[in-house]
Amino acid sequence: MTSTPSFESVKLAYARIKDKVKHTPIVESTLLNQWMGQRILFKAECLQTIGAFKIRGAMNFLARLQEEGRLPKRVVANSSGNHAQAVAYAAAHFGVSATIFASETISPIKAAATQSYGAELKLFPTRTQADEAVAEAATAPDTIWIPPFNHEDIIAGQGTAALEALEEIGHVDAVFAPCGGGGLLSGTLLSTRALQPDALVIGAEPAEANDASLSLQAGEIIPLDHVPNTLADGAATPSVGDITFPFIQQVDDFYEVDELQIAYWTQWLHHLLKLHIEPTCAMTMAAVASWAANTSPGQTALVILSGGNISQASMAHIWERDFLLQPPIISSDDSTEEE
Amino acid sequence: MTSTPSFESVKLAYARIKDKVKHTPIVESTLLNQWMGQRILFKAECLQTIGAFKIRGAMNFLARLQEEGRLPKRVVANSSGNHAQAVAYAAAHFGVSATIFASETISPIKAAATQSYGAELKLFPTRTQADEAVAEAATAPDTIWIPPFNHEDIIAGQGTAALEALEEIGHVDAVFAPCGGGGLLSGTLLSTRALQPDALVIGAEPAEANDASLSLQAGEIIPLDHVPNTLADGAATPSVGDITFPFIQQVDDFYEVDELQIAYWTQWLHHLLKLHIEPTCAMTMAAVASWAANTSPGQTALVILSGGNISQASMAHIWERDFLLQPPIISSDDSTEEE
Repeated sequence: MTSTPSFESVKLAYARIKDKVKHTPIVESTLLNQWMGQRILFKAECLQTIGAFKIRGAMNFLARLQEEGRLPKRVVANSSGNHAQAVAYAAAHFGVSATIFASETISPIKAAATQSYGAELKLFPTRTQADEAVAEAATAPDTIWIPPFNHEDIIAGQGTAALEALEEIGHVDAVFAPCGGGGLLSGTLLSTRALQPDALVIGAEPAEANDASLSLQAGEIIPLDHVPNTLADGAATPSVGDITFPFIQQVDDFYEVDELQIAYWTQWLHHLLKLHIEPTCAMTMAAVASWAANTSPGQTALVILSGGNISQASMAHIWERDFLLQPPIISSDDSTEEE
Repeated sequence: MTSTPSFESVKLAYARIKDKVKHTPIVESTLLNQWMGQRILFKAECLQTIGAFKIRGAMNFLARLQEEGRLPKRVVANSSGNHAQAVAYAAAHFGVSATIFASETISPIKAAATQSYGAELKLFPTRTQADEAVAEAATAPDTIWIPPFNHEDIIAGQGTAALEALEEIGHVDAVFAPCGGGGLLSGTLLSTRALQPDALVIGAEPAEANDASLSLQAGEIIPLDHVPNTLADGAATPSVGDITFPFIQQVDDFYEVDELQIAYWTQWLHHLLKLHIEPTCAMTMAAVASWAANTSPGQTALVILSGGNISQASMAHIWERDFLLQPPIISSDDSTEEE
């Protein structure tokens, strides 16, 4: 039903969406660069429309349907996160009605934002029930389901963040992205391999939701056997997809990050970059720090800061301890997966 | 010893410093604009070098000394906040050694940042003792004291933030800035009156540190009679200055903002703008909300977001309650001072 994206898909996606999404800035911190001994450039997708890169995939999905004269009357999606907001916003842009199916654990702020973009929000006791409901809703006439990550047009859309950044930066030695379902990481890999074939591509996920890491070790997709409890809610996805997994298998390194490190780096990136940054992307810094410590100095890394939508409960938890007195110490290699 | 600045001073300051500081972006939130019924543009000085507008004044002060061939061997300053970091950074830029005199209550993160720029930091039990020590240190040979706000070159430097923003935006109906010692507000007034003579200039300070408001009511400078306990640490200054006060007397409106409103708006601006924003400038939004509710819709306001340096303790306090479920409700006029 859907095919595997290529770099050509990413370029086509960028041509479709570049006037519909923001060209987000690249930022850096002199102090962090000093500490790391490397230049760390951040693609600030937290400043993107809806506060996250997810708008790129949703916008590309609908723009392609429009291009092919197949825009439906209604779209549906299952998400408790940034994909919900992305679909709501993109649907409104194309004049299509949207219904989002989410579990009742959806962050109130993401629920409110989704509704503010004009989407209908249907809540279910569990994520599984929401997934079942969306599958049924998608069978209605003139209705299309927009999947969160496991689709050519979503992956291609997400890949435009790295494309845009790499075209602006020029040479980089390594590119880092977080991994939930793997849409962003797959798209990032496509753009990086095409534009900077010598650069490493490195992923990270929460140790609490380490299904991608387990899947990489097993050589096949292993879903989580528990509901993860992680600050990095954007990477709490229970399983990677059959389209994203082959891309994830091509990354050069992959890290599992514990909750303390996720909170630590969220505080520090707020301080160093003065941006409101989701734990899901701050998490990636644990991988950056390890790479920086095990690499000859003076190299350049690109980090995709995926978003900036954080619940009050997460912020309260992140800031209850003071990490700002413990500046980043470059650790020895703690990679959990070498490929 | 020092004279009153004019708009000419601001223009000269800008010519001196514009290649030494960042041209910070103007940002806005579609959602906030909808709620307010007005267009609210933010000058993001939290993204400025050292994370605050204060670098503008310190850089101008030293650039002028250099221009006049009077650069000393050493500068001293008394500050527990962004001025400490600004002087430390600017002194390093000009190859001058810097010593900062602060009270022991200085936020650890601001202390660390000040030292990371190469300044010596001397701590004293009270702010008064730090002030006495800097006065004595300033009598040493080849040493110049850089005052935090009550000086022509500091005010002129701070005024370049509004100058830069107004030249970029064009027409505005109102300009908002926080008030501590009054350096930023005075400089903002100078630039706005010159470039947009019909625009209102509106200030705000914490109700906990309402010396400017009391001084405006009395028609003379009234210092605080207590050590204020406010989240807006950048506006906790015990008194305005004899150079800044006549400018503060020219503002069109002035607000006292309570601690709940300060925390409320700090959360909301993080969420809406995805920027890490100090309570001192988020405070200004209470004045903006009141102005917006009492003004015909469709107008444009400029808010100077003064900085983004926040201690862990302040962040923990700000995020312990959930304000994100209570979107801004436009209140009736709660101005405490009409001029």
